[in-house]
Amino acid sequence: MKVNEIQIKGEKARSAATILATATTSIKNKALHRMASALRQHKNEIIAANALDLEAGKRDGLKESLFDRLLLTEDRIEAIAAAVEQIITLQDPVGVILNGQTRPNGLQISKVQVPLGVIGIIYEARPNVTVDAAALCLKAGNAALLRGGKSAFHSNMKLVEVLAKAVEESGLPVHSIQLVENTDRALAEEMMKANGLIDVLIPRGGAALIQSVVKNATVPVIETGVGNCHVYIDETADGNMAQDIAVNAKTQRPGVCNAIESLLVHEARAESLLPEILESMVKKGVEIRGCEKTCALFPKAKMAQESDWGEEFLSLILAVKIVPSLEAAIDHIRTYSSKHTEAIVTQNVTSAEKFLAEIDAAAVYVNASTRFTDGFEFGFGAEIGISTQKLHARGPMGLQALTSSKYIVRGNGQIRS
Amino acid sequence: MKVNEIQIKGEKARSAATILATATTSIKNKALHRMASALRQHKNEIIAANALDLEAGKRDGLKESLFDRLLLTEDRIEAIAAAVEQIITLQDPVGVILNGQTRPNGLQISKVQVPLGVIGIIYEARPNVTVDAAALCLKAGNAALLRGGKSAFHSNMKLVEVLAKAVEESGLPVHSIQLVENTDRALAEEMMKANGLIDVLIPRGGAALIQSVVKNATVPVIETGVGNCHVYIDETADGNMAQDIAVNAKTQRPGVCNAIESLLVHEARAESLLPEILESMVKKGVEIRGCEKTCALFPKAKMAQESDWGEEFLSLILAVKIVPSLEAAIDHIRTYSSKHTEAIVTQNVTSAEKFLAEIDAAAVYVNASTRFTDGFEFGFGAEIGISTQKLHARGPMGLQALTSSKYIVRGNGQIRS
Repeated sequence: MKVNEIQIKGEKARSAATILATATTSIKNKALHRMASALRQHKNEIIAANALDLEAGKRDGLKESLFDRLLLTEDRIEAIAAAVEQIITLQDPVGVILNGQTRPNGLQISKVQVPLGVIGIIYEARPNVTVDAAALCLKAGNAALLRGGKSAFHSNMKLVEVLAKAVEESGLPVHSIQLVENTDRALAEEMMKANGLIDVLIPRGGAALIQSVVKNATVPVIETGVGNCHVYIDETADGNMAQDIAVNAKTQRPGVCNAIESLLVHEARAESLLPEILESMVKKGVEIRGCEKTCALFPKAKMAQESDWGEEFLSLILAVKIVPSLEAAIDHIRTYSSKHTEAIVTQNVTSAEKFLAEIDAAAVYVNASTRFTDGFEFGFGAEIGISTQKLHARGPMGLQALTSSKYIVRGNGQIRS
Repeated sequence: MKVNEIQIKGEKARSAATILATATTSIKNKALHRMASALRQHKNEIIAANALDLEAGKRDGLKESLFDRLLLTEDRIEAIAAAVEQIITLQDPVGVILNGQTRPNGLQISKVQVPLGVIGIIYEARPNVTVDAAALCLKAGNAALLRGGKSAFHSNMKLVEVLAKAVEESGLPVHSIQLVENTDRALAEEMMKANGLIDVLIPRGGAALIQSVVKNATVPVIETGVGNCHVYIDETADGNMAQDIAVNAKTQRPGVCNAIESLLVHEARAESLLPEILESMVKKGVEIRGCEKTCALFPKAKMAQESDWGEEFLSLILAVKIVPSLEAAIDHIRTYSSKHTEAIVTQNVTSAEKFLAEIDAAAVYVNASTRFTDGFEFGFGAEIGISTQKLHARGPMGLQALTSSKYIVRGNGQIRS
């Protein structure tokens, strides 16, 4: 008989979730304290487990860029432990009364924030996601079923062993945090169909992983992270501000979802602004792929292909287009945007308000860098991801995104006539 | 070349949604007024179209119970028009500022309620859903792509023709409300995979329809409506109240999702309460399927099968179980509940609070009938369905469930360091 790991762990997670749902903030915080301490206490074992993954990676020809993501050092473990302690300071989202009323018939109805239940996280190389996701789920009263990448298998096994033991010692269920040990693709697919066992799936990783979960899951999914973001420099933009924002949005950290992939410039400002902005981009190592007019103004630019406008480069490549109007910029963004973050640089209040109202994205900016779309920058104190869908949560997700609600109704014998 | 109706109408809906998203409340209300008037004005044409569906139903051997759902009369059209007018009186959910803050760096961040965009509704026989869903979507600034059942085809075609024309006359896009004319199953399946064209799918209908959408859709879905609800009579319940609530919850309207399917009774009260309660149920035509102890106490009961505990009968059948404790009742509900609505009848405050805290359902009641879980009874003024999932919306959904949010960020040149 085939042992079904998802079924078995899913049921254990459901039982744990039932207990976690009514756990007090004090006990959850105690568990988080113990988790942080345990990470520090077992750092040598964790580093040893990580070394096995690094070795296996070398043997299997893992891509160079993935080694850094995979690596755990003493400093990194300390940073991971400190991040767990940071979650202790955040307000517990469970039990918050969102609203309430007394109906004409005397029924008292309150809408109360409650945990989601069992959260499945499907992710890739970074073992810090194991700790981060487990800690955030626990603070919001959820059981976590984690399915990490094969390349981090030994690290994840050790981390979950250490965390689950710490949770158990604090008086909460040991199955509050579980790892799917079989890293076959088939088990990820079983998670995606585990309706009744898993309440919500959150994929964290690259576009291919996220699309696979969105396409295959029958369990509700929170889609995260793909960002084809734009900065548009309007006719009335302050030139220095435009340059600072464009360069920051592209180059401050090009590999993340809130960095821009395209720059749009109003034609009235192209000649005066664009060469200087693009020159400073090039100095920072950016490859420019421009429209015809851009290439005429700035000979270092390569000619952009149609596919460049829709691409999330996640690297030092920038597509640049000169547009005849604000309306044309809005049309371009509507066509190619992944609805993550979009910004306008302008001094004209009508243009600003039009852009804010008409652009459909998780976050829309006037006169600031797109790089601020982030749970920490938004003051949530933590981030489980950035939702690019419209259901449930949109934009940076803090602890609240890991909750649902239920209606509590108190009567004294009311029946319906 | 195959004409792809979903692709074409989906794109038209997207364009309409862009305009609807920034439409003022006044113009949306004007459109709703015109929609109501147009329904009244064209009632004879609507009734004539409906007659074609009824004829076709007879010819095709449509089930008797579906004829009443399908039928449109002058009175029913008036009621449908009045329901549209009722939506005018509701607060526009679009533009509500949910929260906001100024960050230490001066960025002003507001979270603003915005429309979802394009909403796909997949539903069955009742043509009133066509009007109801279209009007609610429009008030919340969304374009509606409606896919009704084949049996209501002529009625739906005429209704959407009348509604779309009224919307156009009010100055909003004619494609704000569209019907999928090809009622092949294949087109419903295309809707379920129309990511990028449709933002959210809401199935309305029986369990089979809803499960098919949940299983096949890659577009985010709001799952609605399946209710395996329970009333539990605790040791300390007021006997009269218990009887009134149980009978009301089962018999006041047995075919709906918030009616109960099972009654649980604490063993200490079974002898004194159960025979009388079940006798009054039988008088109302209820068939009792009891556990062994119930059958011993009440000989008219049939022996329940295991499958009876998990079944949504939607008819005058009641499963009855005598349980040894509150904990046993909670365990039973956890095992079989569809997490819609659950109620306890008790005079003991500790039992009441334990039940409210530990039962995981969209609505949990103390001392009232489960029949109140409803958008109108909750004071929302309208209902697009009752969500039984935990993402986005849970329980009765009013206009707010048809919205998302976006972050508006205003800066004066902030960049990230």
